[in-house]
Amino acid sequence: MRIDIITVLPELLKSPFEASIMKRAIEKGIVEVYFHNLRDYTTDKRRTIDDYQFGGGAGMVMMIEPIDKCISKLKLERDYDDIIYMTPDGETLNQKMANTVSLQKNIIILCGHYKGVDQRVRDHFITREVSIGDYVLSGGEIGAIVFCDAIIRLIPGVLSDETSALTDSFQDNLLSPPIYTRPANYNGWEVPDVLLSGHFANIEKWREEKAYEHTLNRRPDLLDES
Amino acid sequence: MRIDIITVLPELLKSPFEASIMKRAIEKGIVEVYFHNLRDYTTDKRRTIDDYQFGGGAGMVMMIEPIDKCISKLKLERDYDDIIYMTPDGETLNQKMANTVSLQKNIIILCGHYKGVDQRVRDHFITREVSIGDYVLSGGEIGAIVFCDAIIRLIPGVLSDETSALTDSFQDNLLSPPIYTRPANYNGWEVPDVLLSGHFANIEKWREEKAYEHTLNRRPDLLDES
Repeated sequence: MRIDIITVLPELLKSPFEASIMKRAIEKGIVEVYFHNLRDYTTDKRRTIDDYQFGGGAGMVMMIEPIDKCISKLKLERDYDDIIYMTPDGETLNQKMANTVSLQKNIIILCGHYKGVDQRVRDHFITREVSIGDYVLSGGEIGAIVFCDAIIRLIPGVLSDETSALTDSFQDNLLSPPIYTRPANYNGWEVPDVLLSGHFANIEKWREEKAYEHTLNRRPDLLDES
Repeated sequence: MRIDIITVLPELLKSPFEASIMKRAIEKGIVEVYFHNLRDYTTDKRRTIDDYQFGGGAGMVMMIEPIDKCISKLKLERDYDDIIYMTPDGETLNQKMANTVSLQKNIIILCGHYKGVDQRVRDHFITREVSIGDYVLSGGEIGAIVFCDAIIRLIPGVLSDETSALTDSFQDNLLSPPIYTRPANYNGWEVPDVLLSGHFANIEKWREEKAYEHTLNRRPDLLDES
């Protein structure tokens, strides 16, 4: 998979792609990630990428021209499955969307900034608008980090233990049951007996019950979906 | 505000805190952010922070002891309003929660990893469990970046133009209306006439209508909440 990220803050994106799972996926050659500095696609001396809103109001708007130039250049080089815009009013990311996008070959991610991009960018270039949740962030870069991590870890070969991703929360619309590790007794706080019993059928039953109970308490909405 | 982040991957967290809004907030002295490497609170030579699950199953579990040591040390030094655990089965972050937490003085954020932390950490130390959305990430660090950005930008003095945060999506349960900037005509794609009219009452009316229309199309659930 190839991911091209269009940004005004490539330096913000750096460290999450150089650590942990995303680093490993890139080193293994399973994913290629490229940062494109939008200012490299400006034509004026000050490398302007934003301007005032038509109609007045606080906050700057990202201009269409540099974005058009950058996307058009990339599209000449290869076909893209999706051109994604990270924005709080996009479709909310969930595990199902992450599964879908993790199967794609080439994607572009445009990181919004300030008040966002000129609407004509959204109308004419963007194929998918994604929000990572109902809150506002200082820029689309942080959303892009989340989006990339969520999809990259699902690509086969990225996680060392594939069953690990399959038993995660949300893959079956159930939250995970409680988990414990050594010591069995810590300051008098004990691990449930069943987990120490070695009786695997009972353990499986306990986990299923706890996962259901936990989901019912915290996220009954997930049970309605399944 | 002081934020202490407990992590096994301090290097992953680096760049987002050294750029843009979060960098500015730290430089202005409005926020202090400290990364605590959990491995510094281990006692064995290999600096082990995880172990196998009791009862069997794929994925490692973060042990209670190093976490206890780190949290206990911090709590001796000052009082904390919240000790937050980033986990996909926590309470879903939204703008209201971001507003609430942005008013706090000292918080600890514990980043989960692998399959998560020993349940006893959650039962005995954690005061708030937060999820940034219904998807699984490779670690709580990415959630912590999102959480910190969402709250830090709301602290007075962080954003240069305070009205800018107030007109964001979600603050009034409405998505933002479309925005445009120069040029008024780009490749034949034109900006709506009303925004060029200079008639501010009409512009305001158009924006309200568009915001409502956009919310009704994309996120009718937000209208039910208001």
